[in-house]
Amino acid sequence: MLSLANKGLLVVLSGPSGVGKGTVCSFLKSMNPGINFSISATTREARAQEQNGVNYYFLSKDEFINKIDRNEFLEWAEVYGNFYGTPKAVVEEQLVQGKDVLLEIDIQGACKVKESYPEGVFIFLLPPSKEELRKRILGRAADSPETIKKRLSCVDEELAAINNYHYVVVNDRVEQAADKVTAIIKAEKCRLSRNQDMLLNRRRSIID
Amino acid sequence: MLSLANKGLLVVLSGPSGVGKGTVCSFLKSMNPGINFSISATTREARAQEQNGVNYYFLSKDEFINKIDRNEFLEWAEVYGNFYGTPKAVVEEQLVQGKDVLLEIDIQGACKVKESYPEGVFIFLLPPSKEELRKRILGRAADSPETIKKRLSCVDEELAAINNYHYVVVNDRVEQAADKVTAIIKAEKCRLSRNQDMLLNRRRSIID
Repeated sequence: MLSLANKGLLVVLSGPSGVGKGTVCSFLKSMNPGINFSISATTREARAQEQNGVNYYFLSKDEFINKIDRNEFLEWAEVYGNFYGTPKAVVEEQLVQGKDVLLEIDIQGACKVKESYPEGVFIFLLPPSKEELRKRILGRAADSPETIKKRLSCVDEELAAINNYHYVVVNDRVEQAADKVTAIIKAEKCRLSRNQDMLLNRRRSIID
Repeated sequence: MLSLANKGLLVVLSGPSGVGKGTVCSFLKSMNPGINFSISATTREARAQEQNGVNYYFLSKDEFINKIDRNEFLEWAEVYGNFYGTPKAVVEEQLVQGKDVLLEIDIQGACKVKESYPEGVFIFLLPPSKEELRKRILGRAADSPETIKKRLSCVDEELAAINNYHYVVVNDRVEQAADKVTAIIKAEKCRLSRNQDMLLNRRRSIID
């Protein structure tokens, strides 16, 4: 396990599907040019406008499974027959270089990452209300009432995972949510536990 | 003891004398009109431009001592024959009303406040460097080398108290320091532990 003390910050932005993680991340990118956004690997086919190494790392199923076997993912999952995962090497390299890395991942993935990186900053993005959540879940696909019910009960399960997180940000207005995430990142850099080396040097210098 | 869960945030900004707490607070006031800055009580005489209830609550020594006896201070201290203290009632009233309150106090005072309010947000303001600190200590008064040595050794003692704090902010540029304190306040409002009531209501509403 990589120690993150005095290294870059690993920020995990997560939340139920449909909560708007992607939209908040788009705002974050424009607000925080210094943050590196982790690029996921996937076995699904690239869409017309998507570029390898920009939107995703596009891998064959064999390549992906080999990487799983070599423990090269921070977290991975199979969704509707396609694999998705966060490549470990790229993230760790950036952290060691003192760069902050943001992962935008689902709740299961975030829980896996937390096992290896408890020092990461875990932010749970919450929908603004029950009505809005229902609307988003209903709006996403023409699902049967049963599927909708299942999705809603999933959300309930997912909400229970919130206790694994350090922060909760309500995504009512995307600019405000992104602003809060930015503040969280800035604040976390000031946490005492992340500044032990700096403090040790300062104390030495004062009693010189 | 007052529980601060789901109430206003108690923010304690502290640090060695000469670090620039007052200057940072002036910036914070202009950046955060929503924050209430606690007004200290003192027995020292009001200076020409100072107003009672604005700069300080000016009290007689008897009044101050009576308040100490009635446990009406969050913290108090005697400095060069004058008493200084933070009146408890005003602070608690604002917190209960959901208002954030910022205390700008010395390190001993902050440690006392932490005993009663561990849920408060404790921020340590650090001087930018040894040279700058020496310069500030030297610049403050025409002290003897012995007094300067004593002050510097005091700073060392004071720095040891930093482990009582949650955050450390280096006051190299006052605007940046104030910006970091602002981010810390914003981030702390998103902490999971401070949003339990909101989350309980949300979970109820989702499984309705």
